[in-house]
Amino acid sequence: MTGEEMHALVRRLYPLCRSITGDGLRRTLEIIGESAPLRLTEVPTGTKVLDWTIPREWNIRDASIKDPSGARVVDFQESNLHVVGYSVPVHATLSLDELRGHLHTLPDQPHLVPYRTSYYAETWGFCLSQDTLDTMGEGPYEVRIDATLADGHLTYGEHVVPGESAQEVLISCHVCHPSLANDNLAGVAVAVALARRLAELPERRYTYRFVFAPGTIGAITWLARNRERTGLISHGLTLACAGDPGRLTYKRSRRGDAEIDQVLAYVLKDRPHTLLDFAPYGYDERQYGSPGFNLPVGSLTRSTYGSYPEYHTSGDDPDLVRPEAMEDTLETLWAAVQVLEGNRRYQNLSPYGEPQLGARGLYGSLGGRSDTKEAQLAMLWVLNLSDTEHSLLDIARRSTMPFAALADAARSLQNAGLLKEWIS
Amino acid sequence: MTGEEMHALVRRLYPLCRSITGDGLRRTLEIIGESAPLRLTEVPTGTKVLDWTIPREWNIRDASIKDPSGARVVDFQESNLHVVGYSVPVHATLSLDELRGHLHTLPDQPHLVPYRTSYYAETWGFCLSQDTLDTMGEGPYEVRIDATLADGHLTYGEHVVPGESAQEVLISCHVCHPSLANDNLAGVAVAVALARRLAELPERRYTYRFVFAPGTIGAITWLARNRERTGLISHGLTLACAGDPGRLTYKRSRRGDAEIDQVLAYVLKDRPHTLLDFAPYGYDERQYGSPGFNLPVGSLTRSTYGSYPEYHTSGDDPDLVRPEAMEDTLETLWAAVQVLEGNRRYQNLSPYGEPQLGARGLYGSLGGRSDTKEAQLAMLWVLNLSDTEHSLLDIARRSTMPFAALADAARSLQNAGLLKEWIS
Amino acid sequence: MTGEEMHALVRRLYPLCRSITGDGLRRTLEIIGESAPLRLTEVPTGTKVLDWTIPREWNIRDASIKDPSGARVVDFQESNLHVVGYSVPVHATLSLDELRGHLHTLPDQPHLVPYRTSYYAETWGFCLSQDTLDTMGEGPYEVRIDATLADGHLTYGEHVVPGESAQEVLISCHVCHPSLANDNLAGVAVAVALARRLAELPERRYTYRFVFAPGTIGAITWLARNRERTGLISHGLTLACAGDPGRLTYKRSRRGDAEIDQVLAYVLKDRPHTLLDFAPYGYDERQYGSPGFNLPVGSLTRSTYGSYPEYHTSGDDPDLVRPEAMEDTLETLWAAVQVLEGNRRYQNLSPYGEPQLGARGLYGSLGGRSDTKEAQLAMLWVLNLSDTEHSLLDIARRSTMPFAALADAARSLQNAGLLKEWIS
Repeated sequence: MTGEEMHALVRRLYPLCRSITGDGLRRTLEIIGESAPLRLTEVPTGTKVLDWTIPREWNIRDASIKDPSGARVVDFQESNLHVVGYSVPVHATLSLDELRGHLHTLPDQPHLVPYRTSYYAETWGFCLSQDTLDTMGEGPYEVRIDATLADGHLTYGEHVVPGESAQEVLISCHVCHPSLANDNLAGVAVAVALARRLAELPERRYTYRFVFAPGTIGAITWLARNRERTGLISHGLTLACAGDPGRLTYKRSRRGDAEIDQVLAYVLKDRPHTLLDFAPYGYDERQYGSPGFNLPVGSLTRSTYGSYPEYHTSGDDPDLVRPEAMEDTLETLWAAVQVLEGNRRYQNLSPYGEPQLGARGLYGSLGGRSDTKEAQLAMLWVLNLSDTEHSLLDIARRSTMPFAALADAARSLQNAGLLKEWIS
Repeated sequence: MTGEEMHALVRRLYPLCRSITGDGLRRTLEIIGESAPLRLTEVPTGTKVLDWTIPREWNIRDASIKDPSGARVVDFQESNLHVVGYSVPVHATLSLDELRGHLHTLPDQPHLVPYRTSYYAETWGFCLSQDTLDTMGEGPYEVRIDATLADGHLTYGEHVVPGESAQEVLISCHVCHPSLANDNLAGVAVAVALARRLAELPERRYTYRFVFAPGTIGAITWLARNRERTGLISHGLTLACAGDPGRLTYKRSRRGDAEIDQVLAYVLKDRPHTLLDFAPYGYDERQYGSPGFNLPVGSLTRSTYGSYPEYHTSGDDPDLVRPEAMEDTLETLWAAVQVLEGNRRYQNLSPYGEPQLGARGLYGSLGGRSDTKEAQLAMLWVLNLSDTEHSLLDIARRSTMPFAALADAARSLQNAGLLKEWIS
Repeated sequence: MTGEEMHALVRRLYPLCRSITGDGLRRTLEIIGESAPLRLTEVPTGTKVLDWTIPREWNIRDASIKDPSGARVVDFQESNLHVVGYSVPVHATLSLDELRGHLHTLPDQPHLVPYRTSYYAETWGFCLSQDTLDTMGEGPYEVRIDATLADGHLTYGEHVVPGESAQEVLISCHVCHPSLANDNLAGVAVAVALARRLAELPERRYTYRFVFAPGTIGAITWLARNRERTGLISHGLTLACAGDPGRLTYKRSRRGDAEIDQVLAYVLKDRPHTLLDFAPYGYDERQYGSPGFNLPVGSLTRSTYGSYPEYHTSGDDPDLVRPEAMEDTLETLWAAVQVLEGNRRYQNLSPYGEPQLGARGLYGSLGGRSDTKEAQLAMLWVLNLSDTEHSLLDIARRSTMPFAALADAARSLQNAGLLKEWIS
């Protein structure tokens, strides 16, 4: 998928009113499934998932605040951000003063509408720009939220690209945010593009599992239902904010030096980027990295959680997301996939002295030159460090040689019978 | 005790002629005991203590050098620094030339009187300013030291503030220096103030032991008599030079990364300070940190051993010591006590995924805001790292959150049944 | 040996036509043996050595390219670099165009003759300056190489300076390069000088083994024939490029933190120098540091392998090598020998508190001075860290005191019965 195609997917998903449950979420998964077929799971309200319980399902049809003239000064049809997520139904006529406790604005960004939710405390509310609020008189206002909060299900979807090994690479995207483009439709679109590109590989070492689930409760639900599977997760990433123009940011897994952490640091080193240590907030790496699971799951974003002015506001719209930024995120992920797929350990089968590479046609015959060729250097590095303790990535970092050159060297040496893969 | 009260104690102790034994030392311990009651130990001359032997007890009544006119050009009554500590008695009439070998001056600081001792080699001597020496003619001079060096005792005092645990925090001050104010009456005064403040705490986790003993031989004597107790010393500090206007200096224990080392580095990080590695000279951390004991005892000073121009001279008088500097030292120690008392390890009892804090009233109900409150962040950090491997201080250093906020969070989580203290 | 004497040895060896086998190599070892008697080993063609096979022996008597007038435009008698090493015999008349594929020049350094070899692929060739090539017309040219490539032997020599222990320090020099002075006649000359100086020591802790062998195949042959001995190699260095005016360079052994690595870093710290991590190319540290052997063998050079413009050209002549540079290399090696010989671990026999040094005459009797003398400080450091875990070099690095002062202190303390050597 090109950047433009990913951007088209963002725009198509943008208007839907997603939440942690409900039909907006289902429709989102349906559209994702058109590009990357999903296995859907519906978990009933009341189900215990780890320390949590699946909440009632929330669906909303309409909501508005009408002024005395009947005009909709705040209108859900214009933007689903106008309603606090999980608002209970309400129909009342209130003065502005009575209404104020239910209104959320951003006084410092007066033209933007904030994004607010109240999943676990029953209330209702509206979000609007401070500019709009400033124009509102005393009222009275007719307030209506046509929503239902009732027993139902929490829905999530999984797409699997199978590989030779049952060991998995997990890519997890939250899909619960309504009309917010970078957070996280851009992440969703990049994940879909990555899934499609992986499917085109002639062979894959790892199985790749994409989880599209609501934030927090969705990841917790997936973990609760896949507790025994987590041992198969060799590497993982949460993917979010994948399309803004900021530089790439990798946040290390809780382990701090997992292979995924090494791989992302390696592929990012030649691009503008930021590396962050794990912290127990942000996206669902919080759950994957809870101490009981402690999975090797880092987080790739461009601008980070909470760090850009449009974050969780109506400013996070499709214009904030750039096709070329999503392409850059995708290419970075692809580079990481290359390294993950090729990052093996080997055993030098001729470890005493250097083997005679020239006799095997692997080494230039004319001696004395100091400009030893890269391919020859790569073979010397691989031979020297293939003592079962160093991965190819370790060798790349130590030698500062390109990973691909070392992987080529390993292949040549393996073909010559000088190296064999080492399975611990 | 206020800074002024500590300074008053320094001034009161200043005139006494202390040494490693004798009545000046006893009187000093008596005055300390008025504020912090001491258990005194008297160890007889000749007692073997580790590799050493308790020396004879030294007491001095008077000493002078009289010029041909009978005037006291060097007078012990003016300053006890004028006599080399442990000088044997002498009464003789000598020319200046004969006397010179017994006179100590500081040619580079001509107006100051040096501090000199000769505990373990029998001799006698006088200390005087170079300025005074320069005015002295050929003599003859009547020289008299009215001192006794005889079998007696070495005296030290201990003050204990009991806590829940038999595990101890050791605070050790040398009390053998005569009229020197910063080194170490300021350390003594701050220790007394700390002891009194600790006594006011409603409860203490640790038992705090204050040792007031002569330098080197006193610490060695205490160690010799408490060899089996040393296993109870969980943390310790020598405290000296606690009142000069210089920045605080912490010298790490021999272990280098003991908890006391971490705690002091942590409480000092927001103040002007210097951190030093352990070195086997300085104060009695040399003895506590000898390889056989290897106790986790660091050293807190302001200006360090030997580093300020007034060090071991008559310039180290009560004017060098500032009430506000002693208060600053005391507050730093108090901050360290807070961390030591609260620095526990916990076990997250709900380690799979985050527990639902909102359902327990521990988490704000309105979602979407990026300004997660400090208390909530602190809970997330404590939960995430309470895997029995991280202390609260580890979490404070990793999260850069205030220790107190994390300790509060741990308390809330413990009350909610989500955490329990982990005893290794 | 003085710098001038080492330089004389370089000049004497320079004209010989060395290769990895043959009489030039034998004559070189004979001359070395005049200063440092060698045990010679001759290994027959066809012998398997590790993954390699001893090649046929090469000897050359004459070679030239004559122009149509009969003048020798390229003449082996002028410089043995003019013939590609291991060229097979040839006698033919060829046009310049036919000849070109057998001619090697350095177009970027047109006045220099390159050094080339073809040990393991049968061919022949000439090396000449680009300037010469540019003067050559179409020919025809009479080309002649009077060489033999026939069954014979590979020769290497060993010089051993015995010590108390069977544990060895290995110094390895390649001796296969023809008329190249810095690489490696300077290394050979410094090694010879070191051997002679070691022999003058009244006693040596280690046995010192000097190996003079052709590069790569020679080291591999030595390793193949001494496989069981390699366990005796406690420390080692390859020595090359020891005489150019560049700064000293130490390349760490594959282990990276072997004692030899610590020692060289320590002795170099006060001189201009470069420290490099191990890399599997360069000199014979490649073979000693192959993963099967993984010996603690680093590499000492001045300018490094391939890094100076004269490297492997006719510019690497005796003028490039400076007597004072070879002396500096030798003194650095000598400093390293001092540390290796003295770097022991000790056990403090009085580890509880400081022992009373004054009572043993080891400590100044006058107290109070802050200018503790270096000898006393050194004793305190040695006592404090002699817990069997720290070597004297560890103590030198931690204390920043001179190694020699600590070694003196250890001797004094050992004589006083306070310390004993610790044999693990």
